[in-house]
Amino acid sequence: MLVVQKYGGTSVGSLERIRAVAQKAVKCKKEGNDVVLVVSAMSGETDRLIGLANELSESPKEREIDMLLSSGERVSAALTSIAIEALGVKAMSFTGRQVGIVTDDFHTKAKIKSIDGARVREALKGGHIAVIAGFQGITNDFTDVTTLGRGGSDLTAVAIAAALKADLCEIYTDVEGVYTTDPNIVKKARKLDKISYDEMLELASLGAKVLQTRSVEFAKNYNVPVLVKSSFKDVPGTLVTKEDKEMESVVVAGIAYDKKQTKLTIRAVPDRPGIAATLFDYLSRSEIIVDMIVQNVSIDGKSTDISFTVPTTDAKKALNITKEVSAELGAKGVTYDDDIVKISVVGVGMRTHSGVAAKMFKTLSEKNINIMMISTSEIKISVLIDAKYTELAVRELHDTFELENADATIHTDVS
Amino acid sequence: MLVVQKYGGTSVGSLERIRAVAQKAVKCKKEGNDVVLVVSAMSGETDRLIGLANELSESPKEREIDMLLSSGERVSAALTSIAIEALGVKAMSFTGRQVGIVTDDFHTKAKIKSIDGARVREALKGGHIAVIAGFQGITNDFTDVTTLGRGGSDLTAVAIAAALKADLCEIYTDVEGVYTTDPNIVKKARKLDKISYDEMLELASLGAKVLQTRSVEFAKNYNVPVLVKSSFKDVPGTLVTKEDKEMESVVVAGIAYDKKQTKLTIRAVPDRPGIAATLFDYLSRSEIIVDMIVQNVSIDGKSTDISFTVPTTDAKKALNITKEVSAELGAKGVTYDDDIVKISVVGVGMRTHSGVAAKMFKTLSEKNINIMMISTSEIKISVLIDAKYTELAVRELHDTFELENADATIHTDVS
Repeated sequence: MLVVQKYGGTSVGSLERIRAVAQKAVKCKKEGNDVVLVVSAMSGETDRLIGLANELSESPKEREIDMLLSSGERVSAALTSIAIEALGVKAMSFTGRQVGIVTDDFHTKAKIKSIDGARVREALKGGHIAVIAGFQGITNDFTDVTTLGRGGSDLTAVAIAAALKADLCEIYTDVEGVYTTDPNIVKKARKLDKISYDEMLELASLGAKVLQTRSVEFAKNYNVPVLVKSSFKDVPGTLVTKEDKEMESVVVAGIAYDKKQTKLTIRAVPDRPGIAATLFDYLSRSEIIVDMIVQNVSIDGKSTDISFTVPTTDAKKALNITKEVSAELGAKGVTYDDDIVKISVVGVGMRTHSGVAAKMFKTLSEKNINIMMISTSEIKISVLIDAKYTELAVRELHDTFELENADATIHTDVS
Repeated sequence: MLVVQKYGGTSVGSLERIRAVAQKAVKCKKEGNDVVLVVSAMSGETDRLIGLANELSESPKEREIDMLLSSGERVSAALTSIAIEALGVKAMSFTGRQVGIVTDDFHTKAKIKSIDGARVREALKGGHIAVIAGFQGITNDFTDVTTLGRGGSDLTAVAIAAALKADLCEIYTDVEGVYTTDPNIVKKARKLDKISYDEMLELASLGAKVLQTRSVEFAKNYNVPVLVKSSFKDVPGTLVTKEDKEMESVVVAGIAYDKKQTKLTIRAVPDRPGIAATLFDYLSRSEIIVDMIVQNVSIDGKSTDISFTVPTTDAKKALNITKEVSAELGAKGVTYDDDIVKISVVGVGMRTHSGVAAKMFKTLSEKNINIMMISTSEIKISVLIDAKYTELAVRELHDTFELENADATIHTDVS
C-alpha cells in the first residue's frame, strides 16, 4: 500500500514529537507500505516569522512572506528525515520545488496547478521514506517559492496522494477526527467514523477547523480517501470518502459555526436594476468572497437595503469598497456588524429528506433566537444569528437532530 | 558604482539590527549606487539548527543538514528585504538557486562552480536592492540545495561581486578590519588600511577569523576589491586588494595564530621509500588536509618518526587512518598532541627582504620557546609551539617586528 501521512505543526512541535512521527512512519514502512510524509512547520514557527515581518513592515510584500514562511517546513522536513534515518530507515526530504508542486503566482495563497512527483517516486523505489515540506510550491517557471495559505500542508498531502495514486492519505492532527459539532461546545458531540467529501467540504467551509476546504475539494476531485486521526492517541479517526448508501440515510451529519464573518449593510440604495451587480462586481475584483446576501424588498419602491457577509479578514477592504460604491450610487451609507455567527447544519441526507430547514428554524425560534439571514445548498442550511447565541444554538440543534446517537438516521418525521 | 555588501549573523541578529542594515543599504543606494546585499542567518540560528539535528542523530546526512541550514539565510534575506521596502525602496530577496549559484555536490562544504546572476542584474535594473541569502547554492542539475561551509556567506558575496563585476565588495563584520594580530592578545595591535590578497590569504588560512580563506582566493582570482569594516561603528575598515609598491616595503604585515591544529606522530616506521606517500595518500583520500610535516632523520637507518599536523576537527578521523597505516607498515604506534599552536608571520615584503625567519626564531628562543615544526612559503613563516606560549609568542613577535607602527617598513636590518 502507498500511504501519505501528514503531520501538522503540533505533531512536529518538538524533537520528542518529531521522534514520535519518525517512529510512526517507520512502523508503517515496516508493515510493508511505501510511506510519504508531509510535514508542517514546527508549531509556533509560522506565527513567529509572520510576527517578525509585521514588526518590520505594515505591509510586507507577499513574495517575501513566502520566502520567509517556506523556511519553516524545510526545517521540519529535514529534521524529520534525520530522525527517521536515526532509526535505521532511509529517508529523504523534499521541498515543494523538488517535488515539482507547480502553482500559480498568487503569493501566500497560491493554487496548485500540477504535481510532478518523479523524485518522490524515485525515492520510494530506492526504499526511502519521502518527507515533503508542506504548504509550499513553486511558480510555473520554477522561479519563486509560493505558499498555499494556512492549512496548506493538508492540501500538499492530498495533492501528492492524488499525484502518486496513494491508497490512503492520513491527516494526523490534534483532534481525534471529525465530530458532529465542536466538542468544546457540545460535550455529547460524537466522532464520525465516516463522512462524505461533500459533507466535509461544507463543514470545512462553514468553520469546522479539521480540514482545509481546498484539500477536501482536491480529495473529492481525485477520489483520495482521507483519514483524519489523532497524532497523539492511537484511536480510530474519521474517514472522508465517497458518498455511500449508509451516509444518505443520515439527514444531518454535523453542525458547524463560523464567527469569522462580518455583515455589511448598504442602506437606502436607489432600487434600480444592476445595483447589486455593480457592488458585487467591485468586491469580486478585489478577490473578496461574499457569502450570504439579502436584499430587502423595497418599501417605497425607490430604495432598498442590501446586506451581505464577508470573511472578517477581508472586512476592512470590503468596507472601503462598499463605502465608495455607496457614495457613487447615492446610498445613505454603510453599516458594519461583526458580532454575528453563521450556524450551519450539514448532511447529504437532506437531498432526499425534507423538513430539515423548518425543524432548524423552529428550534431557534423556540429559544427566541432571531435569524438575520438564511442560505441553503443541497446539503446544508446556514443561518446568521447574533454571536452571543452561538453555544445555545449549536447545543439545541445538536439535540434536535439527535447527533449524539450513531444511529440517528430517522429524521424523516420532521416538519 | 555597483556595491556588494555582506552582513554576517551578528549584523542581522535582531530586527533592530536588520533595520540598521536596511538603512545602510538604502543610504548607499541613495548615493547613486546599485546595491546588492548578501546576508547570513541571524546569529545563533545556524548553531541552533545544527544542535537540533545532532540531538536527533549522531551522524545526520549532510544533504539534510544543507536543507536544514539553508533555511536560516532565507529568513534573514526575506526580513532584510521587507525592512528595506518599509523604508520606501524596492527590494527583492533571492536564494542561492535563484541567483544561479551552481556548486558541486559536496554537501555542507560545496564549491562554487558558476554563478549566473541574471535575476540579480534584472532586479538592479528595475531599481531594486537585491538581497541574497548567503552560504548556499544549488547542485549542477538544480536539484538539491548545498551550503558552502562556515563563513560561506563571505564567499557568496565575493563570488557575486565577481560575477556582477562589482566595483567593491564590502564585508560588514563585528571587527573593525584586519589587524596586525589579534587585538585580544596584543592591545597595541594596529588596524591595517590595506592588505594584499596573498597576505590576507595567509592570515585567513593561518587562523585569522576576519575573512574565510576561499573567499579571499576568489577575490584574488577575480580581482575583487574587498573592504572589511565594522557593522556597528562607522570607521574606516581594511581594504583587501592587489599588491602594490607600498605593501612590498612592509616586511611583516601581520601575525596569526591557530590553536585548532593537532599534531600526530607515527613512531618508528620502517624507513623505506614511499612510506610517507602511502600515509598521506590515505589521508588525502579522506579529504583530510595535512598542514606541516616533519620526517625525522633516521637514526639507525632503519626506522624514522613522521610528525604532521591536521585541523583538530579532522583529528579523530586522521588518527584512525594513521593507526591503520601504522599497523600495516609495522610502525611502533601513533601519538597525538592537540596542546599546540601554530604561530605565523606574514608579509609580501618577505619576497624581497631576508632574515625574517632568523629574527623570528631568535625572538622565540630568547623566551625559551621550543619550536616543534617549521613551515614557510614565499610570504610567511609558521612555527608550531606549545599552546601555553601562544600569547607570549604573539606579543613578543609583534614587538620584534614593530607592528604597532604604521611606518614600520624598515626591517631589512635583521639577522
